[in-house]
Amino acid sequence: MSAAGTGPRYQAPARGRPRSEAAERAIIEGVMRLLEDGVPLAELSIERVARTAGVGKATIYRRWSGKEELFVDVIRAAEPPDPDLPGTSVRDDLVVLLESLRLRGLAGRSPALLHNVHAQMKSSPGLWAAYHDTVILPRRRLGLEVLRRGRENGELRADVDLELLNDIVVGPLLVRTVLNPDADLPDDLAERVVDTLLEGLRPAGG
Amino acid sequence: MSAAGTGPRYQAPARGRPRSEAAERAIIEGVMRLLEDGVPLAELSIERVARTAGVGKATIYRRWSGKEELFVDVIRAAEPPDPDLPGTSVRDDLVVLLESLRLRGLAGRSPALLHNVHAQMKSSPGLWAAYHDTVILPRRRLGLEVLRRGRENGELRADVDLELLNDIVVGPLLVRTVLNPDADLPDDLAERVVDTLLEGLRPAGG
Repeated sequence: MSAAGTGPRYQAPARGRPRSEAAERAIIEGVMRLLEDGVPLAELSIERVARTAGVGKATIYRRWSGKEELFVDVIRAAEPPDPDLPGTSVRDDLVVLLESLRLRGLAGRSPALLHNVHAQMKSSPGLWAAYHDTVILPRRRLGLEVLRRGRENGELRADVDLELLNDIVVGPLLVRTVLNPDADLPDDLAERVVDTLLEGLRPAGG
Repeated sequence: MSAAGTGPRYQAPARGRPRSEAAERAIIEGVMRLLEDGVPLAELSIERVARTAGVGKATIYRRWSGKEELFVDVIRAAEPPDPDLPGTSVRDDLVVLLESLRLRGLAGRSPALLHNVHAQMKSSPGLWAAYHDTVILPRRRLGLEVLRRGRENGELRADVDLELLNDIVVGPLLVRTVLNPDADLPDDLAERVVDTLLEGLRPAGG
């Protein structure tokens, strides 16, 4: 029982207003549907979202202060959760991390949601900053953590800074998923990238 | 003396309509000025461009079939030319290529032109395709050529495909210039990336 059931003051209206979580889901799915239909971000008013989700505007404003805040939650809902790392070696952890980027790239293609929205988001500094802080930064921290462990273990060289190592590791996958969304994403891509990076581009014994 | 001076048939009108190249430059600079002022691509009409450049709409349509075609030339004009490669080794060529990406990243920051426009361009499939074909693809071909030579020379391992090698090499720079335009772009970045990639991420002798 939620607070709504603790006394008559909080009783739901007789006609059955959807509970908060259901309404929230309907709103987020409403925005996704509009975006998938190709509605540009600029035309996505709270009024239109409310109509699509079948809720009142007040229901939206109770949860989000405005369009940008709502939109960040939509993006977060569309992102898969960060993967569990096996922790067996830096190589294994990096393969899992890059595989999750690959799968995210594949998933982002069919609804064309992420590609289009990503582009629109970059035109809005506030939205981009929010997306960066809630989606990109935590994922980046996870990668840096794996690399830091690898350096401490001696699995990775100690003379390259972690930020650069991270950009080297994620770069090829981001090129293929974000910058060039028609690129090939074969099943063994994560392993090939990680093994090539670990061994280096010079021929063995060269 | 250009063709305009070779005979009376080509003489400029008495009031001095700007010659074709001068008009073209004025038009392209007009679009850049509007974009730098933050005018969104969608609001950038041929009429507005004509007014800003001080030319008639017909002058624009004589050279470009429409807004998208004009816009691709603007983007191309804003891009530095591809660098001359020393050809002394794959390492040296790759350093020069990545250094040009680094400089392009630095240059693209002050006018905020490329960042903003890049984002808007990705929302327009036609524009993006044109940009891809005229700017990205030739640069990519140059990188692939260097890598192909390196594989044939034995400077690079032969067991990684060229497309993947290319994404591995340019990935870190693109992450720092396109995806994360606030990232650090230190003077020695190109060299550090190339040397780290050539030697690999494992500790020497590991």
